[in-house]
Amino acid sequence: MRAELIIIGDELLIGQVLDTNSSWICTQLNEIGVQVKQISTITDDADEIIHALTLATSRAEVILMTGGLGPTKDDVTKLALSKYFHSELVLDEKVLTHVKGIFEKFNRPMLPENIKQAEVLKVSEVLFNKAGTAPGMWIKQGKSHIAIMPGVPSEMQYLMKHEVLPRIKALPGRKELIQSHILTAGIGESFLAAKIAHIEDRLPSYIKLAYLPAPVQVRLRLSAVGDNHRLLKAELDSFTQEIKDELKEHCINTNEQTLEETLLDEMRNLNLKLALAESCTGGYVSHLITEIPGSSRVFLGSIVSYDNTVKINSLGVKQQTLNDFGAVSEQTAIEMAEGVKQNIGSDYSIAITGIAGPDGGSIEKPVGTVWVAIAGVKKTYTFKYLFQNSRNGTIIRASKNALYQLIQLVREENK
Amino acid sequence: MRAELIIIGDELLIGQVLDTNSSWICTQLNEIGVQVKQISTITDDADEIIHALTLATSRAEVILMTGGLGPTKDDVTKLALSKYFHSELVLDEKVLTHVKGIFEKFNRPMLPENIKQAEVLKVSEVLFNKAGTAPGMWIKQGKSHIAIMPGVPSEMQYLMKHEVLPRIKALPGRKELIQSHILTAGIGESFLAAKIAHIEDRLPSYIKLAYLPAPVQVRLRLSAVGDNHRLLKAELDSFTQEIKDELKEHCINTNEQTLEETLLDEMRNLNLKLALAESCTGGYVSHLITEIPGSSRVFLGSIVSYDNTVKINSLGVKQQTLNDFGAVSEQTAIEMAEGVKQNIGSDYSIAITGIAGPDGGSIEKPVGTVWVAIAGVKKTYTFKYLFQNSRNGTIIRASKNALYQLIQLVREENK
Repeated sequence: MRAELIIIGDELLIGQVLDTNSSWICTQLNEIGVQVKQISTITDDADEIIHALTLATSRAEVILMTGGLGPTKDDVTKLALSKYFHSELVLDEKVLTHVKGIFEKFNRPMLPENIKQAEVLKVSEVLFNKAGTAPGMWIKQGKSHIAIMPGVPSEMQYLMKHEVLPRIKALPGRKELIQSHILTAGIGESFLAAKIAHIEDRLPSYIKLAYLPAPVQVRLRLSAVGDNHRLLKAELDSFTQEIKDELKEHCINTNEQTLEETLLDEMRNLNLKLALAESCTGGYVSHLITEIPGSSRVFLGSIVSYDNTVKINSLGVKQQTLNDFGAVSEQTAIEMAEGVKQNIGSDYSIAITGIAGPDGGSIEKPVGTVWVAIAGVKKTYTFKYLFQNSRNGTIIRASKNALYQLIQLVREENK
Repeated sequence: MRAELIIIGDELLIGQVLDTNSSWICTQLNEIGVQVKQISTITDDADEIIHALTLATSRAEVILMTGGLGPTKDDVTKLALSKYFHSELVLDEKVLTHVKGIFEKFNRPMLPENIKQAEVLKVSEVLFNKAGTAPGMWIKQGKSHIAIMPGVPSEMQYLMKHEVLPRIKALPGRKELIQSHILTAGIGESFLAAKIAHIEDRLPSYIKLAYLPAPVQVRLRLSAVGDNHRLLKAELDSFTQEIKDELKEHCINTNEQTLEETLLDEMRNLNLKLALAESCTGGYVSHLITEIPGSSRVFLGSIVSYDNTVKINSLGVKQQTLNDFGAVSEQTAIEMAEGVKQNIGSDYSIAITGIAGPDGGSIEKPVGTVWVAIAGVKKTYTFKYLFQNSRNGTIIRASKNALYQLIQLVREENK
């Protein structure tokens, strides 16, 4: 069953608003085994809407349309739909009562454009919108089913959950899809591919493997389509386990968490505390960790020691070490990691010192040179990197690599 | 001139990855007066790629394609392109040398799929990619110009800036557009609009005003289209100045810098140093500042005091203050700001303490409560906020508001 989305909104095409609706809808459809094959993002223009609908209905069985509804936009979209579906607009009494009720509740006068919101295509089944004033519509045309929803995320999500997804689930001919995920880190995409090529080659035609790379990590996704769910699941689990065994320490998780989430979960379960000393990453690792709800149960704090005086005064790095080896050195990284661990009183710590650029490099220490030290309960380990990226790329890669190395050490020392 | 984007990536259509490339590209094209009329997001499938290209070239003069390149994906996309453009794939020696250089530098063996990355369409002009291994391509077909880029954001952005945008700017038939920008902060979009309505009403038809809102800030953009550049520029400058005068302290800059960049520039020019004490923002302000090249000339360091022991030991907050008023209080914020200023030895400091949620709120201090203290040379000022957002929304809004308040104080104390 092929699905497509049509997303209407000028604000998306000038880059003013990031489209988060598409991603949300795709996730929901994916979970019930419906594959989205295309998203067409178009302007608030009648001809564009009709053109997009004409193409989408020629290709897909399920078409979800969002946006272009609401008091200031109604005219264009609804008239385009009326023309495309050869159906007049009629006032829906139930919707009108609902809209009136909302205006009364907030004690606001109703304008003519608010009454128009209760107009729906005569040919449609009305999708009653308890989360707002713009109703959704469900239309069958030829082999296609079309859902029309407002673009406000909370209203769209309400209609999807209560009206649209149940209708899609009930459509005949829908194939079940199941998936498994493996997050890998510390191994490049091509090496990863080479390492598991012998497993990939044995995958049956109904199981697909996808590589989803991001800095320092690659997410693997196995997707299986078929009728016997139980058999399929067993087969998928077996391949997932085989890949996991092959990748050993490079396998971070199979539960769709991020690197940071896995680290925090494992440290929390072991009742371990974390502190950070960040120089070139300037607080980015701290930010990645504190974005996660509940991180305060593991994370105590960080010293962002950009200036050398902070390395000395707040971390206890020796002036002599800075003189002899420089701020970007293995020795300084070690003193930073051990200093922050002791000063803040954590079980584990990360220290990162490097040259993010674009200036500050030298022949011995070019831009992109980064030293990471990971202090564990028993020992401190160091890692040297040379990144060839933008300033921001170096910050991200240094941070993600440090998190990866800390996961390794926590697992090693607590197995 | 009509532009369209074709975004290739299964990961986007299952909702696993949020597409931020489209929004970025739309913003860039918008800035040079090119209107994006459609974004087609499609799967990594040869037929879909050919279908999307056929439709897009029938409608648009400029087509930007991203994704589907890279060692494990090359085959499908490049073969589809080869078929669509009736052009064989040839090894580009310059690209091959570049790819080889990267592998040599990192002392890693090259696999056959890495060599394949240097293959380009014979009919294309190669867009040399210094930010990665996958080259871009530029192809002219009929009335359409097609740019093909990898989907990795840093690589796509590099190619856009250095290769694609300059080529689009040079295309014939593009109308010249001149723009001016005003960054405003600390005033909501509707209040801002009301405040400058009398100026907006007087704008001639060939000058458009756009509001580009983001958390805590609204960017205003005046765009003028016409032939007499000098006259147009004078008129644009005059309206820009009028808006600036009307907005007073809410006007941050007119040079397209971010809030952070303006703060750093002004502090650097005054030879002032900055330190931060972050609790609920967890290092995000430090990250915003250290992302900027040269920030080390102003920024000394931060203490991320997530745990109360860090507030006491590293910032000098009194145990009594925490007992009497709690960690999220005006008094604690003041002691954090003054403590970090003294310990790190800066001229100015920011302290932020709050409840980012989703847990940890109470009736007196609900989730979203944030205290900000700004310590200046002469005095410390405090600000209380109550944000009604997600955890991440609160982190971003608290950080941006603190930066806005520090800009105000630095300007006030140094005028």
